Amino acid sequence: MDFVDITKDIENLIKKEKVKNGFIIILSKHTTAAVRVNEKEKGIYKDFENFVKKLLPPKRYYYHNDLSIRTENLVCEPGASDCLNGHSHCLHLLMGATSEKVPIIEGRLAFGPFQRIFLIELDCARPREVIAQIVKEE
Amino acid sequence: MDFVDITKDIENLIKKEKVKNGFIIILSKHTTAAVRVNEKEKGIYKDFENFVKKLLPPKRYYYHNDLSIRTENLVCEPGASDCLNGHSHCLHLLMGATSEKVPIIEGRLAFGPFQRIFLIELDCARPREVIAQIVKEE
Amino acid sequence: MDFVDITKDIENLIKKEKVKNGFIIILSKHTTAAVRVNEKEKGIYKDFENFVKKLLPPKRYYYHNDLSIRTENLVCEPGASDCLNGHSHCLHLLMGATSEKVPIIEGRLAFGPFQRIFLIELDCARPREVIAQIVKEE
Repeated sequence: MDFVDITKDIENLIKKEKVKNGFIIILSKHTTAAVRVNEKEKGIYKDFENFVKKLLPPKRYYYHNDLSIRTENLVCEPGASDCLNGHSHCLHLLMGATSEKVPIIEGRLAFGPFQRIFLIELDCARPREVIAQIVKEE
Repeated sequence: MDFVDITKDIENLIKKEKVKNGFIIILSKHTTAAVRVNEKEKGIYKDFENFVKKLLPPKRYYYHNDLSIRTENLVCEPGASDCLNGHSHCLHLLMGATSEKVPIIEGRLAFGPFQRIFLIELDCARPREVIAQIVKEE
Repeated sequence: MDFVDITKDIENLIKKEKVKNGFIIILSKHTTAAVRVNEKEKGIYKDFENFVKKLLPPKRYYYHNDLSIRTENLVCEPGASDCLNGHSHCLHLLMGATSEKVPIIEGRLAFGPFQRIFLIELDCARPREVIAQIVKEE
């Protein structure tokens, strides 16, 4: 599991696009990578990873990983661990972390002091794509 | 638990409304039915159902199911199992799956190759209503 | 844990701003307070609190709470329990409850009969700030 803080990229985009007021949608194009808002503190990342590994152990039996019965989507996303990522799909379904939206007020994300936007890898590390869509007030 | 893939309905709506760029909000009008984005693969549905049944067993004691003390909302949604669905409410609160929003770019959902939109029934099967709201760029 | 029903405040804002059609984004400015849609029934609040206390016991070891190794964000939000809220951060990461968005149709939230908006305190009680942003159709 990997927490990538993408807040600075989002802030730079807002500056570049000269947005005063509006909002932004940030979407992960993947079913096992999550967009999430939380605090930037390394202990939290480790706590969450430990918690999740117990909740959904990767080594448990998953139908999704059973290639003796599976018939759908046998071609995986590049870098995926041979599609054997049932635990990541269950976690992503539980978390529902496909996207976040954040109001922009006076050129800034309307965040409290501890809020940051993360892309969280729920499967093995690999290239991931995130879309940011800005809606501006005119 | 039931996974209903509603992606085609959403795509047809986007075509019918001739949306080029914008985004769509998809909302479940229910507190025990979820809108979620994930992969279309039957094993995943079973894995998630198995996982969730252990996490929140329907037969455990729930205050929500205890009609000897409960005073609120004793008239249920049509088809609900006599309101005895405490496990479904806990799961829905955890998942937070009331809605999803997805950018539309060049007439298409800005999805990766494996992303699909589901309505997931967290309680007993029954008719469910979903709202889709489109915001278009002019 | 505390469930605060903020639906009336949101409805009053929609009336005051004379919104006919559009949508609203409701954002918590905190990393341990959640915005969520569910049913208003006291038993559900207790069921969820009981469930969550077992899932993420506050007294378990969390890296976030270990001030002998932690180096980041040692100044806490006012009222936070000396930053020792690793369980609340894990829960918030799992729930992903930074914001909700709801379509507004004919001057009303496009909700089903049982849906209400809550601010849910996942840590100790203290003042919390929520932002509501309205986007109107013209």
